[in-house]
Amino acid sequence: MTERIKGVLSPVVTPFNADYSPDTVRFARQCKWLLANDVGLAVFGTNSEANSISVDERMKLLDGLVEAGVDPKRMMPGTGCSAITDSVRLTAHAVKLGAAGVLMLPPFYYKGVSDEGLFRNYAEIIERVADPRLQIYLYHIPPVSQVPITLKLIERLLKAYPKNVAGIKDSSGDWSNTKAVLDNFAKEGFDVYPGSETFLLAALRNGGVGCISATANVNPAAIANLYKKWQTPEADDLQKQLDAVRSTFAKYPMIPALKQAVAHWSGDAGWAKLRPPLVELTQEQTQGLLNDLEALRFDMPGLKN
Amino acid sequence: MTERIKGVLSPVVTPFNADYSPDTVRFARQCKWLLANDVGLAVFGTNSEANSISVDERMKLLDGLVEAGVDPKRMMPGTGCSAITDSVRLTAHAVKLGAAGVLMLPPFYYKGVSDEGLFRNYAEIIERVADPRLQIYLYHIPPVSQVPITLKLIERLLKAYPKNVAGIKDSSGDWSNTKAVLDNFAKEGFDVYPGSETFLLAALRNGGVGCISATANVNPAAIANLYKKWQTPEADDLQKQLDAVRSTFAKYPMIPALKQAVAHWSGDAGWAKLRPPLVELTQEQTQGLLNDLEALRFDMPGLKN
Repeated sequence: MTERIKGVLSPVVTPFNADYSPDTVRFARQCKWLLANDVGLAVFGTNSEANSISVDERMKLLDGLVEAGVDPKRMMPGTGCSAITDSVRLTAHAVKLGAAGVLMLPPFYYKGVSDEGLFRNYAEIIERVADPRLQIYLYHIPPVSQVPITLKLIERLLKAYPKNVAGIKDSSGDWSNTKAVLDNFAKEGFDVYPGSETFLLAALRNGGVGCISATANVNPAAIANLYKKWQTPEADDLQKQLDAVRSTFAKYPMIPALKQAVAHWSGDAGWAKLRPPLVELTQEQTQGLLNDLEALRFDMPGLKN
Repeated sequence: MTERIKGVLSPVVTPFNADYSPDTVRFARQCKWLLANDVGLAVFGTNSEANSISVDERMKLLDGLVEAGVDPKRMMPGTGCSAITDSVRLTAHAVKLGAAGVLMLPPFYYKGVSDEGLFRNYAEIIERVADPRLQIYLYHIPPVSQVPITLKLIERLLKAYPKNVAGIKDSSGDWSNTKAVLDNFAKEGFDVYPGSETFLLAALRNGGVGCISATANVNPAAIANLYKKWQTPEADDLQKQLDAVRSTFAKYPMIPALKQAVAHWSGDAGWAKLRPPLVELTQEQTQGLLNDLEALRFDMPGLKN
C-alpha cells in the first residue's frame, strides 16, 4: 500500500456558471491554488454543494481536474450518495482515476436507520468496487446528514474490511465524539480528521492526522502551517489565530460566505453563485463579512489571476 | 388542461432482485394490481425507496411500466432529488411519458434552508422542463426530508406558476398543517393529499382530493372504497376499519412491513428485499405482523399469480 493522504484538506467550493453548470476551468484553478498552499482536495464535500450536483456532473468535474494536471493522489472526493448504485459508480470512478481516498457519507434520505443497514451499504460498495486501492473515509456529519456513524459501526467495518476502511471525517462539532473515535481506533491506523480546524491541534495531540475543514477553502496556508508546527511552542498561538478567522466566517451562512470570500479575493464575482436550495449572502451580510475580515487583516494571497 | 388525477394513490413499493437490481416485471405486475383496486400510482415515493435508486434506474423502471401497458395518466412519480439537474432530468422524462403529475421533494441534503432557496429550486425546474403538461405536487414530509414546505412557499409558487403547481402531499402527520393548507389553498384548485388514509375522511370533508398512503400498497380496495363512499352514512365506520389496519402496520418499521406483507400474500419471498440502508423485518417481527393481520382477517385478494 502507498502512504495515505494526511494533513489539511479542503472541501473545495464548486464554481458554477450563470446557467448553474459546474465550471471545470475555475475549479481546477482553485484546486491548484489550494495545493500550492499545502492543502489537499476533499472535493465534493458538504461545502462543495456535492449533493446539489449530479453524479455525471461530479464525474466530469473529476475528469476535468485530472486532465488539468491536478494530482489525484492529493484528492479525497466525496462519493457517498443516497442511492447505493450511485455511490458505487462514483467511487469506482474516483479509484480508477487514482484518488488517494474517498470520503463517504452514509445514505442520507432515511433517518433513524440501523447500523446493520449502514454496514450493508458500506460493505456492498466495497465488495462491488472490489479494488485494493479503495481507501474509504467515513463521513460523520449528523447536523446535516442526520445519519450518524457510530463507534460500533466503525468497529464492525474495520474488522470486516481492514484494508479498505481508512479513517473518518468527524464533522459532529462534538470533541467528545472525536476523542472517543481517536481513543478507540487511531492506534489501529484508522485516520481521524476533525471536520474543523478548531479541533486541529487537539486532534493532532491525540493521534489525529489532520483536518478537513470548510475554512481551509479561504485560510489554507495558515491552517497548513499549524499542521506543520503543531509540536512547536507557537502551536497554541497559531490555533488561536485560526479560531479568529473561523469564528468570523461562522457568523454568516458558511458556504455562501466562503464563496463570497473567494469571489472577492479572486476578483471573479461569478464565484458567489450557489445552486438552489442555497442562496448567496445578502449585500448587508457581504459587507459585514468583508468588514470583519478586514479587521483581522485577512487576505487570500495568490488567488487573483 | 386534461382533468387532474384524484383519489387514492400508493407510493408503490419497489421490488429488487437478489443482486439489488430493480425488477421491472414484478413492479409492473404490482402496479396493475393496484390499478385493478382503484388505486393510482405514486411510484418513487418514500415507501418506494426512491432515493435509494439512481435516476437512471428510475427512468428505466418508468419506461418499463409504460411498455408493460400501465397507463401513465394514473401515475404521479416522485421526481424530486437533492441535485436540481437530476430533478429536471427525471421530471422531464416523466412528463414526456405522459405522467399525470410528479410528486416533488425539496432538495433534502441541506437543512434549515430558506424559502427563497426552495422557491428557486422549484422555479428553475419548472422553467427548464418548460412543458405546459407539467403538474407538480409538492412533497411535504418533514419527519424524513427534514425540509418543510411552508404555507408562504406554496403561496409564492402558486402565484408564480399557477398552471404547473397542482397540489401537495402532506406527510407531516400533523392534521393542523393539512387543515391550514386546505383552508388556504384548496379553493384555488390546489389539490391536497394527506400522506396517510388516517386523514382521508377529514381531508375529503375539508376540500381534499384523496390521499397518498403507504398502506395503500397493502389495503388498496378498502381505502379506495372510503374514497367512493365518503359522503355516505357508513363513512366513519369505514374510516375506523382503515385505521385498524394502518395502526397494525405502524407497529413495525413501515417499509419492510409493507414488503413483507406483499411477499406473504403474493407467495413471492423475494418481495421482502430492501436496499441498504433499510433492512427487512426480523423473523420475530414478521411473525408478529402476520399474527396481528390474521387477527384482523386481513387479506390481499388477487395478489397471488
